[in-house]
Amino acid sequence: MGDELRDVDGLTIGILGGTGDQGKGLARRFALAGHQVVIGSRSAGRAEEAAASLGDLPVRGAENAAAAAGADIVIVAVPWDGHRATLESLRSELAGKIVVDCVNPLGFDKQGAYALEVEEGSAAQQAAAVLPDSRVVAAFHHVSAVVLLDPAVDAVDLDVLVLGDDREATGLVQALAARIPGARGVYGGRLRNARQVEALTANLISINRRYKAHAGLRITDV
Amino acid sequence: MGDELRDVDGLTIGILGGTGDQGKGLARRFALAGHQVVIGSRSAGRAEEAAASLGDLPVRGAENAAAAAGADIVIVAVPWDGHRATLESLRSELAGKIVVDCVNPLGFDKQGAYALEVEEGSAAQQAAAVLPDSRVVAAFHHVSAVVLLDPAVDAVDLDVLVLGDDREATGLVQALAARIPGARGVYGGRLRNARQVEALTANLISINRRYKAHAGLRITDV
Repeated sequence: MGDELRDVDGLTIGILGGTGDQGKGLARRFALAGHQVVIGSRSAGRAEEAAASLGDLPVRGAENAAAAAGADIVIVAVPWDGHRATLESLRSELAGKIVVDCVNPLGFDKQGAYALEVEEGSAAQQAAAVLPDSRVVAAFHHVSAVVLLDPAVDAVDLDVLVLGDDREATGLVQALAARIPGARGVYGGRLRNARQVEALTANLISINRRYKAHAGLRITDV
Repeated sequence: MGDELRDVDGLTIGILGGTGDQGKGLARRFALAGHQVVIGSRSAGRAEEAAASLGDLPVRGAENAAAAAGADIVIVAVPWDGHRATLESLRSELAGKIVVDCVNPLGFDKQGAYALEVEEGSAAQQAAAVLPDSRVVAAFHHVSAVVLLDPAVDAVDLDVLVLGDDREATGLVQALAARIPGARGVYGGRLRNARQVEALTANLISINRRYKAHAGLRITDV
């Protein structure tokens, strides 16, 4: 793809809200790739349980603040409802760090999923507004938790779109995405274009329902 | 993919605003697939010129109203600026027909492309609001005009996301998309989720710029 990929070896990954399936799935894959992972939660006990549920892997659990403070890169995988409040409470722990937002602001009704309006434009832009001293990147929106957690899946079949305004940070997160076997990290534009990437998850949910699939995206010609 | 694909053989395709590269590219591929195609424009002369520029193919030019009236399926490929007015002026010609909106409401500045706000949510939803008697489907947003027009490209490497609330209509447009060699038509959700599909074109433009590519999307696991 001609993009410089930074070395992410040895980085510790924190995952806020890591007790959900998406967070656990990412924790599992990054741990399998050799990273130390800290699952964060409001409750240290639930974080430790989630870490233990992944078996014999270098994953531990901690309260969100400790997970943020102890990690080199912090992934935000909290429910949309608690997104702003969680990030506001962790501003100092996240200062100076790369914060990777993978939250999809979605609503659900009888017709399926749909995108919610976000005052700042997107969850990622909200994170950037709340965390002016962090380097916010948007990524991992479309990765199926089911696939990440499935021990029968050795390699995924999808690309991770990585968005942000800080080229070094997006390059590093692209390299991190590539640690998931089968995945590529593809630069996907600036943070102002994160909204549609988050919202596209609603379409993938429709596709999954129609085709009984765990759909992913590949970007062709790159 | 397990989806029933309707027979589109013999259908005449009208392309409003077909003098632009996107419209001409689609005209070329549908004509190569054996369809009669009518390129529409505000000026019959310019429409005829565009048709002639495609060489020896079953493509003719006409004013937009005649192109709409003479086609079985009508693709809307007009510039976003003229989208609402053009559709309002063709309400009667488009009544009862499948209208396929492929318009991307985008703005451009020094940082590249970004999604514009649309009162109705998306260009496709605007079309549905303006054309209550038509069967509006959204599709063909991400197909590179350069690739469609390139005689060296025998087959494209992308899927066409097809969105709409009328299952027969989306099925037919999926089948139409599959007439482009290499493409599949993949159901992508209801019209209320068209906004992010249109807006994602801004991301593909960023990807094209970064990787010097003509990026497309593939949907995996379907």
